[in-house]
Amino acid sequence: MINQAIIVAGGKGARFGSVLPKQFLTLRGKPVLLHSIELFEDITDNIVVVLPEEQSDHWALLVKTFPVSNKVIITTGGATRTESVINGLKALPGPSDLIAVHDAVRPLASKGLIEKLFSEAGLYESAIPTIGPRDSLRMHQGTEYVVLDRQKVLAIQTPQVFKSDILKNAYSSLSDHELTDDASAVENAGKKLHFVHGEEWNMKITWPEDIIIAESILKSRENKPS
Amino acid sequence: MINQAIIVAGGKGARFGSVLPKQFLTLRGKPVLLHSIELFEDITDNIVVVLPEEQSDHWALLVKTFPVSNKVIITTGGATRTESVINGLKALPGPSDLIAVHDAVRPLASKGLIEKLFSEAGLYESAIPTIGPRDSLRMHQGTEYVVLDRQKVLAIQTPQVFKSDILKNAYSSLSDHELTDDASAVENAGKKLHFVHGEEWNMKITWPEDIIIAESILKSRENKPS
Repeated sequence: MINQAIIVAGGKGARFGSVLPKQFLTLRGKPVLLHSIELFEDITDNIVVVLPEEQSDHWALLVKTFPVSNKVIITTGGATRTESVINGLKALPGPSDLIAVHDAVRPLASKGLIEKLFSEAGLYESAIPTIGPRDSLRMHQGTEYVVLDRQKVLAIQTPQVFKSDILKNAYSSLSDHELTDDASAVENAGKKLHFVHGEEWNMKITWPEDIIIAESILKSRENKPS
Repeated sequence: MINQAIIVAGGKGARFGSVLPKQFLTLRGKPVLLHSIELFEDITDNIVVVLPEEQSDHWALLVKTFPVSNKVIITTGGATRTESVINGLKALPGPSDLIAVHDAVRPLASKGLIEKLFSEAGLYESAIPTIGPRDSLRMHQGTEYVVLDRQKVLAIQTPQVFKSDILKNAYSSLSDHELTDDASAVENAGKKLHFVHGEEWNMKITWPEDIIIAESILKSRENKPS
């Protein structure tokens, strides 16, 4: 069984209000991106990291400063997330059974969750981690915001794991390059998705506050054996 | 200008997997509920706390252990959140200009946000704090989960602040007692809502992990003057 991972490191720090892209900010002394990479170290054979071209200097500095798994292969991102995943798929060395696609800014997924996702994707062709939203939600419709039935809504996380051919076919037949995730690409190709219960802690580092929150989560994990 | 607050402390710890209701768990040595109460201490004239009857022992212990503002009035909750708010409205001592309704399990709203909500509700009759969701969202429709346009979705927080008569009229004319929040009650009464940008940190304590996260947020605030 050959498993591979693609880690997609997105845009700049604009939304974050930081000069350094958020995947290069440090968490407990180590860049967010390196945390995300290490999640796959024991589970996959190769880890393709897709980086925007302008971040290659940040990466060069990272590998000078920290030990990085020799499973890592770097490739260059595209103009959209979708194009970046396509570049990541092209950079995979040889075939595989399962492929995980992960956001670089989700460093807190547990290895237990990732193992479970690979295992379920082996059975169901895909495994998409989801959690229920914690707040009431409203959606813009016409001139107002209408209440959504929260019970019916899922928040979608990564890593999303797929049988290799399904993911590759989905992206090779894709016309819409503005998709938000890989599940959507696979669904567009006519495949049913398999949802798996994700983790509250598997948060996407989105705002400056999140670094503080993520630090505390990591710290609390270090203090108790999992 | 008379401002009042109603703090609604909901159900048991079932979802939380804890025996102690989550509003009585401690954050930095002080119960979550007390943090929530203190947010309103400087801004409102009265603070009605609506507690389920079975939590009166917890409250009795709390007031023995911690100093509690003399602005606090305790009343008993109903079978649903809506009924609890109605009880809270009945317990308000005398008229007011503006009323805030807040979830007991959101201890991290900033006083700056609360002041802003009161100020905007004075101008626009209501002020509802909202933030954009950070994950992709899907909603159950028919046999599948359809991708929602995240740009169009708002996550709704509390406190929600209203002109007093608008909130009271909304609840006095209400037929549906399963509403998720006060904004919905006011909207059902035909009023337009005014949304205000909320705070990422104003999280609802929902899962055990959240206590650790909330602790770290409070700690980081103590370390830097706001």
